[in-house]
Amino acid sequence: MKFVTKLIASLEARGPLCVGLDSRYDRLPDFITASVGVTEAVVAFNKEVIASTHDLVGAYKMNVSFYAAFGLEGLAALEQTNEYLRTHYPHIPLLADCKRSEMGTSVEMVRKEIFEWLGFDCVMVTPWFGFDTVREYLSDEARGVCVYVHDSNPTATELQDAELKDGRKLYELVSERVARVWNTNGNVFVEAGATYPTQLKRVRTIVGEDMVILTAGIGTQGGKSANLRGVFGKGGKRLLVNSSRDIIFSGSEKADYFPAVRAAAVNLRTELEAAAGA
Amino acid sequence: MKFVTKLIASLEARGPLCVGLDSRYDRLPDFITASVGVTEAVVAFNKEVIASTHDLVGAYKMNVSFYAAFGLEGLAALEQTNEYLRTHYPHIPLLADCKRSEMGTSVEMVRKEIFEWLGFDCVMVTPWFGFDTVREYLSDEARGVCVYVHDSNPTATELQDAELKDGRKLYELVSERVARVWNTNGNVFVEAGATYPTQLKRVRTIVGEDMVILTAGIGTQGGKSANLRGVFGKGGKRLLVNSSRDIIFSGSEKADYFPAVRAAAVNLRTELEAAAGA
Repeated sequence: MKFVTKLIASLEARGPLCVGLDSRYDRLPDFITASVGVTEAVVAFNKEVIASTHDLVGAYKMNVSFYAAFGLEGLAALEQTNEYLRTHYPHIPLLADCKRSEMGTSVEMVRKEIFEWLGFDCVMVTPWFGFDTVREYLSDEARGVCVYVHDSNPTATELQDAELKDGRKLYELVSERVARVWNTNGNVFVEAGATYPTQLKRVRTIVGEDMVILTAGIGTQGGKSANLRGVFGKGGKRLLVNSSRDIIFSGSEKADYFPAVRAAAVNLRTELEAAAGA
Repeated sequence: MKFVTKLIASLEARGPLCVGLDSRYDRLPDFITASVGVTEAVVAFNKEVIASTHDLVGAYKMNVSFYAAFGLEGLAALEQTNEYLRTHYPHIPLLADCKRSEMGTSVEMVRKEIFEWLGFDCVMVTPWFGFDTVREYLSDEARGVCVYVHDSNPTATELQDAELKDGRKLYELVSERVARVWNTNGNVFVEAGATYPTQLKRVRTIVGEDMVILTAGIGTQGGKSANLRGVFGKGGKRLLVNSSRDIIFSGSEKADYFPAVRAAAVNLRTELEAAAGA
């Protein structure tokens, strides 16, 4: 199946919420880590989060460094989590937040790492090296590439909003390149942060109503769901909104930890669907 | 020891050659891979390359994806190679070509992955997300950050040479930021490709004679050692020139494979020292 078909079908079936499984071992609750090793603890935690959220999500996103920080045992947990997801929930796209922005023959190595070994559907890259960063992915429609065009962090504007000679901002140039030049085969889409609502709306205008945008920065980082009005795209089904720690670490006591995770996911999804319909 | 002290001492003692240990398992010679597993083969190959080159190099650089492409076994080889290097050649800086451009609390995860687990001295990042990408590394002088300011690939100019409203090119803006704003504690340096000699010289002018520049693209990618004249910096000792497959895979038959690797390293180093002195 084409990646973009899987992504859009998932968005249409389950809505815009993307849960970030950034399940760093050192933040897992004690009742999960007690008397088991790193791999087993992280996989057990992820399976509980997945059980609590799989019917609510358009995608899962994993930051690879949050696993690699715990060495081979951490990465084994990522490998096993993705294998579990591909077996039990093959309809949910898995996005690799890895910023692996390679080119030329090095891309072959990233494909083996991210797609073949770890089983992701999509790699996320910065546009810094130009078209070379996405070129090698275009021929494989079963996998996607997401390009960071405008981010949610405080200094995102330092380069991304630099004003060009022709009056455009740099993120506008990148958005145009992605939409009109780079995306030759339908499997490229973009990321733009919810903490910069003006730029996010501008990205939507440039890439059009049909391209999926992944956004982040709602909640702890200060973005508001209301900021997303008007950027959901075609039928309100072309925006994916990531939330990581605000969902997966929202529990406290053992008895209601994962019910609290589910409640946090339900709440954000309800807010997002209201914004999509508005 | 401060990272910059170690890096400059290494450049002054052994010169500008940086060998890229991009030892992808599927390209190793048969006499290395026969009858052993991935980890053992890659480590054995690296130890031979290290034995043949350690007295000739200012640094080693590893592209993490070239190991991760072969899963946990590949990454175990990287872990063991770096442990071996830190034990036997603690004076040689180890650079992580990983493009792990994270920010905020995620940097903590990259530090654990790249410095604590894998034992690198330096992380390489794109400047796309602005100062946030380097901020969290500044307080740890024992580790370095290398920022890609202008790359060697064909489409590097697409964003990096974009002309700004004030007449500067984007890579000039980034070089200025790194040299005058981001490098508050002496442990930040830059990468600029040898396939764009004009831009490389301009980067040297902007960052000054004392900052180390890492360059790449000599050999297969088309850059010439002669292009490097005038960019070696203070005393001819502030430029690091990476070469990967042109050195490590330069052998053919078993009997003279590693002597050929050494000869390739000696030849390039001689060329570079001539260019440095010119």
